[in-house]
Amino acid sequence: MRKRLCLCFMCAVLVLVTPTAWSQTPDDSKPATSNVGNAPYPRVHPDGRVTFRVKVPLAQKVQLMPDVGRADNNGVSTLGVGPIDMQKDADGYWSVTTQPARGGLHEYFLNVDGLFISDPYSEVYDELNRRTSAVEVPDPDFDDYLIKDVPHGQIRTIFYFSNITQAWRRTLVYVPPGYDADSTKRYPALYLLHGGGQDETVWTSAGRANFILDNLIAEGKAKPMIIVMDCGYAPKPGESGPRFFDPSNTPTQGPMVPGNDAGSQKRPQAPGGGPAGPERGTTFEQVLLTEIIPNIDSQFRTIADSDHRAIAGLSMGSGQAFSIGCGNQDIFSYVGLFSRAPYTSDFNLKTAFNGAFTKPDEFNKKTHLLYWNAGGAETGIVKFARSTTE
Amino acid sequence: MRKRLCLCFMCAVLVLVTPTAWSQTPDDSKPATSNVGNAPYPRVHPDGRVTFRVKVPLAQKVQLMPDVGRADNNGVSTLGVGPIDMQKDADGYWSVTTQPARGGLHEYFLNVDGLFISDPYSEVYDELNRRTSAVEVPDPDFDDYLIKDVPHGQIRTIFYFSNITQAWRRTLVYVPPGYDADSTKRYPALYLLHGGGQDETVWTSAGRANFILDNLIAEGKAKPMIIVMDCGYAPKPGESGPRFFDPSNTPTQGPMVPGNDAGSQKRPQAPGGGPAGPERGTTFEQVLLTEIIPNIDSQFRTIADSDHRAIAGLSMGSGQAFSIGCGNQDIFSYVGLFSRAPYTSDFNLKTAFNGAFTKPDEFNKKTHLLYWNAGGAETGIVKFARSTTE
Repeated sequence: MRKRLCLCFMCAVLVLVTPTAWSQTPDDSKPATSNVGNAPYPRVHPDGRVTFRVKVPLAQKVQLMPDVGRADNNGVSTLGVGPIDMQKDADGYWSVTTQPARGGLHEYFLNVDGLFISDPYSEVYDELNRRTSAVEVPDPDFDDYLIKDVPHGQIRTIFYFSNITQAWRRTLVYVPPGYDADSTKRYPALYLLHGGGQDETVWTSAGRANFILDNLIAEGKAKPMIIVMDCGYAPKPGESGPRFFDPSNTPTQGPMVPGNDAGSQKRPQAPGGGPAGPERGTTFEQVLLTEIIPNIDSQFRTIADSDHRAIAGLSMGSGQAFSIGCGNQDIFSYVGLFSRAPYTSDFNLKTAFNGAFTKPDEFNKKTHLLYWNAGGAETGIVKFARSTTE
Repeated sequence: MRKRLCLCFMCAVLVLVTPTAWSQTPDDSKPATSNVGNAPYPRVHPDGRVTFRVKVPLAQKVQLMPDVGRADNNGVSTLGVGPIDMQKDADGYWSVTTQPARGGLHEYFLNVDGLFISDPYSEVYDELNRRTSAVEVPDPDFDDYLIKDVPHGQIRTIFYFSNITQAWRRTLVYVPPGYDADSTKRYPALYLLHGGGQDETVWTSAGRANFILDNLIAEGKAKPMIIVMDCGYAPKPGESGPRFFDPSNTPTQGPMVPGNDAGSQKRPQAPGGGPAGPERGTTFEQVLLTEIIPNIDSQFRTIADSDHRAIAGLSMGSGQAFSIGCGNQDIFSYVGLFSRAPYTSDFNLKTAFNGAFTKPDEFNKKTHLLYWNAGGAETGIVKFARSTTE
C-alpha cells in the first residue's frame, strides 16, 4: 500500500511537473549570452530559470550536473542540486528547465550515459583542469561585468621562460584605458591569482576582470591600475605538478565527480601549487617574486614599490595570496582573499608568519589592507574563516 | 553464402585489428601536447598514430569523427575517414588507435550515442560555430609554430564599438618583439582573416601566428610587423548574420554533420559574412575599411599607407581578402589567399574588379603581391583555383 501510494505520488509529480517544464521553453526565454555563436540553447527565462536542450538520440540517460557535478555542492549553484534528469522527446532531444537561478555564471556539465561533457553550445572555461561549460543568467542587481560605453583597457598576453620551472609561461596583463596615451604615467599593480583547476585566462574570460575595472574606473570607484594574471601552478622539472589527474584513480581517493575521470582530480598541493596552509617557500612563490614581478616591473609602467602592489586570489589563489602577501610585507601592502577554502585547519593566529598577527601596530604599518570575504551562499567558508580568526 | 563470407571477413578483421589496436596504446606513446592539464589521453605515438580513450560506461556506441565529421571530408584529416568505431572495455572505457596521421593540429569530435561532443580532455577551438576538439601530432619537418628561445611579441586584445553593426567587437593585435622598446619605430601591418565558423581567436590559438612570426623574425625570414585579427562576421542590426544555425533544420538543407545540430550550420553569406564571390561592399568590408583600420592606425604605430598594408585570409577569409584586397588597391598592396574555397564559380578574370586583371601593368603597379595557395591534400581547391585562373 505504501509503495503504491509512493508510485502514485511520483506519477502525480511527473504529470504536474514535466508538462509544465515543457511549456516553459518558448517565447519568454532567450538564448543565453554565454552560448557559442547563435546557438538557441541553453535558454534563460526572465525569472532566471534555464532550459537546457541537447540532441542525443541513442542515449539511455542524460542529466544536468549543476556546479560541474561537485560532490560537495553546497547550494552555491542555484541551478539546483544535481544530478537533474533530462527528459527525451520523440526526436531524440533531451531537455530540462531548472528552478530560477541567481544572476551570474553557472558552471555545469551534461552527464551523457555516464560521460561528463561540456555542452557543445556553451562557452567553456578552464575549470577542474578541463573545459567546463557555463551558462550566464543576467543579474538584475549587478552589471559591472558587462561591456559598457566607457573607455576600455587592453589585455596583453606576454610569454616568458621560467628558469625555475624550466618551462615557458604566459602572463595576461590588463592595462587601463589611456595607458598608451601618456608614456610617463605609472600605475599601481594588482596580482590576481586564480582558483584550483583554473588557469590565468579565467579572470578575463569567466571573470571579466577587465570590464569590471573599465566600469569601476569610469565611475571613479577604482584608481587606474595594472592587473597581472599568471598561472598559480609552477611545478619544477621532474615534478608532476598539481595539474595532474589520473583516470585510473578510484572514487575512494576522493573524487569531486564520482564515477568519472574528472573525479580523480587531486587537490592542488605544494610544491607546484598553492600552499596547504600559510607555509611559505613554494615554487610558485619563487616564480612570482623572482621572475613574474621583475618581468612586469621592467616591461610595464608600474609604481614598483610595496605601497603600490596588491595581491589577491580566489579559493586556492586566496591561500597563495594570504601566505605570499602576509609573508612578504615589504613587497605587498594589500592582500585580498576571496572565497577562501577551508584547507588551513592548522592556521594559528598567534604563530602564523612568525607571530606577525600578535604585533598589530607593526603589521598594520606595512599591510594597509587585509580583505577576506566569501559569497553569501558559501556558508561553510564563512563559518570556517570566522572560526580560525576568533 | 555471400553474406556468410562477408560476416567471416568482418570477424577476421575484428580479430586481427582490435587486439593490435589495444597493443598499440602503451609505452611508446605520449599524451598529446594539445591535452588539457595533464590528461593522459589522447596519446600520440612516434609514427603519428593517435590513441583516443574516454569513459562512457552506459553508451551504446562511441565513434571518433575525424575532421569534425565534415560530410565533405576529402582526406584532409589524415587521422582517417570517419566515423571510426571505438571499442569498449569491461570498465566502460572506449578506445581506438588511428592510422599514422600527418604532423599538425587535427580537429575531431566524439560521437557519443548520436551526440557530437568535443573531447573534455583536449584543447578546443572556435570552429564550426562551436567548441571543437583538436589533437596535435608533432611535425618532423616543421616546428616554426612552437614557442622557442627567441624574443617574443605580445598579443593585445582591444575592444571597440562598431557604429555600423551597433555592437561591441574585439580585435587581437600581435605586436612584434621590441615594440615597446622604441616608441618612434613604425611597422607594416597584416590583416589576417579567419575561416568560416571560426573567429578572431583562432589565428593565435590553433594557428599560433604569434609564435610563427616570432620565429620567422628571429631567423630574419620576416620583417617585424603588426598582425591584426578581427572577426570576419559583421551582421547589421536586425540581420541574424551568418553565425547562425538552427537545430530545427533538416539534413536536406545541407548539413555538414548529418544527424546533428552542428549539421545545420549554413554557409556564411553576405551581407554579414564573407562574399560568395569577388563582389564587394559587404558589411564586413565597411567595418574593416572605416572602423578597424582607422582604429588600428590610431592606436598602434603602423606605417599607415597601402605599401605597408597587407591582407590575407583562410578559406572564407581568403574570399574576403581577395575581394577587399584586390578591390581596394589604394589601401592594400599585398593580398594572400590560403585554402581558397571553391565558391566563386562566377569568377571571371576578364570582368572581375572592373577588369583590373586585364590591365596587368596597372594592377602590378599597385598590388605588389597576389599570393594564392592551398595545402597539398586540398586537391579540390587546387584544381578549382587552376580552372578559374586559366
